[in-house]
Amino acid sequence: MTAPVYAKIAVIGCGLIGSSVIHAARASGAVGEVAVADASEAARARIVELGFADRVTADPAEAVRDADLVVFAVPVMAMGEAARAAAPGMKPGATVTDVGSVKAAVGEALAAALPESCFIIPGHPIAGTEQSGPDAGFAELFQNRWVILTPQARDDEPYADALQRLSDFWSALGSNVELMDDRHHDLVLAVTSHLPHLIAYNIVGTAADLEGVTRGEVMKYSAGGFRDFTRIAASDPTMWRDVFLSNKDAVLEVLGRFTEDLQALSRAIRWGEGDKLFELFSRTREIRRGIIAAGQESAEPNFGRDHRAPADPDTNAQQS
Amino acid sequence: MTAPVYAKIAVIGCGLIGSSVIHAARASGAVGEVAVADASEAARARIVELGFADRVTADPAEAVRDADLVVFAVPVMAMGEAARAAAPGMKPGATVTDVGSVKAAVGEALAAALPESCFIIPGHPIAGTEQSGPDAGFAELFQNRWVILTPQARDDEPYADALQRLSDFWSALGSNVELMDDRHHDLVLAVTSHLPHLIAYNIVGTAADLEGVTRGEVMKYSAGGFRDFTRIAASDPTMWRDVFLSNKDAVLEVLGRFTEDLQALSRAIRWGEGDKLFELFSRTREIRRGIIAAGQESAEPNFGRDHRAPADPDTNAQQS
Repeated sequence: MTAPVYAKIAVIGCGLIGSSVIHAARASGAVGEVAVADASEAARARIVELGFADRVTADPAEAVRDADLVVFAVPVMAMGEAARAAAPGMKPGATVTDVGSVKAAVGEALAAALPESCFIIPGHPIAGTEQSGPDAGFAELFQNRWVILTPQARDDEPYADALQRLSDFWSALGSNVELMDDRHHDLVLAVTSHLPHLIAYNIVGTAADLEGVTRGEVMKYSAGGFRDFTRIAASDPTMWRDVFLSNKDAVLEVLGRFTEDLQALSRAIRWGEGDKLFELFSRTREIRRGIIAAGQESAEPNFGRDHRAPADPDTNAQQS
Repeated sequence: MTAPVYAKIAVIGCGLIGSSVIHAARASGAVGEVAVADASEAARARIVELGFADRVTADPAEAVRDADLVVFAVPVMAMGEAARAAAPGMKPGATVTDVGSVKAAVGEALAAALPESCFIIPGHPIAGTEQSGPDAGFAELFQNRWVILTPQARDDEPYADALQRLSDFWSALGSNVELMDDRHHDLVLAVTSHLPHLIAYNIVGTAADLEGVTRGEVMKYSAGGFRDFTRIAASDPTMWRDVFLSNKDAVLEVLGRFTEDLQALSRAIRWGEGDKLFELFSRTREIRRGIIAAGQESAEPNFGRDHRAPADPDTNAQQS
């Protein structure tokens, strides 16, 4: 094991992502000491029990004292307040990042709250599960996943050094690092993450409220496809409320496109235009193959959840 | 192993479901001899190689000769033609079922095509993967999954006996059997299966066509949620085209409700109504818990696709 990338880090907010950062940093030896601040008394008690932090406190300013890297891992609309609370304790020259799913709004909130001596580099690991809280974290979460950093528009050498070091940190945790403009990040993630969550929440809500079909039936026969959507619709409500409110413009833009396409599909069904349906359904298959080839998805049928099915999708013969 | 439920079965159309029926029937000892008819020469050659059928032919009438149970497992709009082709060979008093995802239209097509001496009991196993073809099948596919049978409106004793025997067959394959009115089936499945597929196909299409975000970016950052949708959007295009065209009314009805709910959600985002979002996002979590409790879904985070995360969702502490 090489020398730690950071002698001390502070993690502010210790849910699924915060605790996974700590597990991964410890497992990789990327960090020396770890301090945690969390606003929830229950979470703090649990973190102490789990024993993965050197210090646990309710006060962000106390947690960040002497930290070389501060990672804000609270819901995106709580970032500003957490940063303001941490500011008085911040070590001059510390690197500050976050793990929020929206980058432009969070970057502004951090910049407004923190002293100029900090190197603020907003970030977003594209990884997660539907679970929440300090128990949900695990060291392998970031393995082979992308972390997008959206650095500020400054080209001084100390900032470039801080950026390099933060990239090294994420690489040590197993991630691939990509730099991106924050607005572009917010559009890309509106497509690959925010819209999927919105659609999943919506369809689960629709199914739950439908007259004529009971909730019991919806659950019982969910293996026909519905159950897939319930996974991301089980994600943390606070986190996702904040995402939609903080990335409103990009989400509404891609939602508009989705709705337009859905109307066309609805019309094709109504008028019995089988060719149009077939054409779309054939194209979408290719996208999954690309994702599997890119190492971002399991090739096993049903995500491997059955642990029973054959593993090679390329052996499929033609459907009769 | 007890005596086979049927001495001989014929499976017409040997894709994922047809081949899984054969594997499961053989593994459970529910069947003696198995004949297969498939219209695809490539599929037939592969079935012979795989060696799971006693007889393989292109001609449904030949396959069904002497069969006590005939299982039609072709796309739903091909059922009528397959049944017409099989009719001349059909044994008097044979039981006929199918595995199609739509029941009213298929029930009518089978009844119109087959001799009156057959006991027609349309059926639908709520099980599958995103894969297709005779290589995709496996014996455990129906374990602990529901099979819905939609018997005809007749109450004679021979029909009741045939129904009991078909139920025993599916039970032997590991399934739970439920009887249902065919129209109700088509509405329930429109919610739990057809709408989810339509939405998944649509979002993958939208993402693929969006200007401003490349397909490479969509694939690269798909672990944010999008990748989940690509699984069912990789399902067989012919099968799904037929489902939407054959269950048009129910699909358009639930799609109308979905769209209405989505407009309300869109409006809540536009006007910053965080409470409405939070309320929905909290409710949807419960539905997944119900599905897991009903044994229809893996409790592991990320469907267990990572094979790394902790398995107990009840240990989640509160999000900070």
